[in-house]
Amino acid sequence: MRSIDKFNTAVNSGKHICVGLDPDIEKIPDHLKNSDDPVFLFNKSIIDTTREETAAYKLNFAFYEATGIEGLSSLKKTIEYIGNDIFIIGDAKRGDIGSTSAMYAKSVFDYFKCDSVTLHPYMGYDSVQPFLVYKEKLNFVLTLTSNKSADNFETLTLSTNEKLYQKVIGKVNEWNEKFNNCGIVFGATQLTQLQENINLIKDLPVLLPGVGAQGGSLEDVVSLFNKHNFTNYLINVSRSIIYASNGIDFAEKASQELKKLNTEIALLSSAK
Amino acid sequence: MRSIDKFNTAVNSGKHICVGLDPDIEKIPDHLKNSDDPVFLFNKSIIDTTREETAAYKLNFAFYEATGIEGLSSLKKTIEYIGNDIFIIGDAKRGDIGSTSAMYAKSVFDYFKCDSVTLHPYMGYDSVQPFLVYKEKLNFVLTLTSNKSADNFETLTLSTNEKLYQKVIGKVNEWNEKFNNCGIVFGATQLTQLQENINLIKDLPVLLPGVGAQGGSLEDVVSLFNKHNFTNYLINVSRSIIYASNGIDFAEKASQELKKLNTEIALLSSAK
Repeated sequence: MRSIDKFNTAVNSGKHICVGLDPDIEKIPDHLKNSDDPVFLFNKSIIDTTREETAAYKLNFAFYEATGIEGLSSLKKTIEYIGNDIFIIGDAKRGDIGSTSAMYAKSVFDYFKCDSVTLHPYMGYDSVQPFLVYKEKLNFVLTLTSNKSADNFETLTLSTNEKLYQKVIGKVNEWNEKFNNCGIVFGATQLTQLQENINLIKDLPVLLPGVGAQGGSLEDVVSLFNKHNFTNYLINVSRSIIYASNGIDFAEKASQELKKLNTEIALLSSAK
Repeated sequence: MRSIDKFNTAVNSGKHICVGLDPDIEKIPDHLKNSDDPVFLFNKSIIDTTREETAAYKLNFAFYEATGIEGLSSLKKTIEYIGNDIFIIGDAKRGDIGSTSAMYAKSVFDYFKCDSVTLHPYMGYDSVQPFLVYKEKLNFVLTLTSNKSADNFETLTLSTNEKLYQKVIGKVNEWNEKFNNCGIVFGATQLTQLQENINLIKDLPVLLPGVGAQGGSLEDVVSLFNKHNFTNYLINVSRSIIYASNGIDFAEKASQELKKLNTEIALLSSAK
């Protein structure tokens, strides 16, 4: 299945929760720690219990890179284990000058075989274009992020009276006209701005981190999208799913937590 | 030696050229390609002939990540081979929310043992802070980059009449007051802007890519810095050094090219 088709299949069937596989070796259950590859074993167990219910998996590369080659080996094994049927986001937040970005694209798409990537907009079009030429992939560009310091630069007002992140959304729409494989990252903690910019976003796929540990509300985000009949979105949830328990039942509890969130979305959608 | 001391030792002794070890397997000499680790062998040969004359080595992670675990193993071996006496820049252009940036910092500083890193400013202070807390390291934040699309966002005018990249330079100065281990990346192709902002940059260490293949002029950049008695800078040169020859004499030619650039800088400095 093409990467973009996997995304569409998920969201069109009402699946919007993306499980963030961001394993921190210090937080995974003790009984896994003596195995050969605790991180992979942790991920594998969670994939086994969540595969049917998740819209996608998002793997933040930082959590794997932290332990170097060992971690990247766990990353590769995890992606192979997920297989070809579920949308995989390589949350790598890359961006460099063109010829170098092409190397990053090779890494995320050809080597790690992700369906999708997250990208920094700062350096502009030619830093993003080497990813866009992978026509069947989906490229999520950072716009307004979920962290507090988003107000350092992202929300600055330009001389045109736009905010910087709004200018970025506009550019992503331009790039999408040409390549038809762009999306945006928008923090779930930024609800007012999401509401204000829903028309500017048009039909761009939206990836929303920030629900749960970072303070974003699932109900608020889903209600907003429902109100606008906007279905092209994934909400990433990591910690509250993967660390739902740190006992031997962690994978079962992860699945229960995911089902709970899916039920909440279904109820909100049926009530609209 | 502390990372920052390595930087200072280099620039204070008049060394300003940083060799960019960005090996592309398709461009390295044929006679290396049958070895176990052609990329490491290529780097090792160049390090052997340039070690005495270089100010620093910059390793762009993209070139290693492109081949996955194999490439990252070459990266790690290369950094170990350079050893502890020469300033090493991990050109990884990272940036994520705080807890995740901490994982990237762990990767670049603790695992790969770089002295320094390059960072995206887009997400603001809390995305950079986990790197800054490594007090003895040096953190180069992207400001005005050397690529054409720098005009998409970096040079946008804010409502305060500043350009975005100028606002970034201002923030980096603020962060530097607290941590004293910040620098900036400024494209060597952006000479007019470098001239205009030399006072804004204050004493921040400056890393300049873009000389050579990208069109920046060594003479222009060095003359400008000399005029302002500014010595806190590294000019990265990659392709014209590491691919000075693709025969068996590649390492010797790389060394000759580096010496030629060093002589040019010395002449410009003595003539000022």
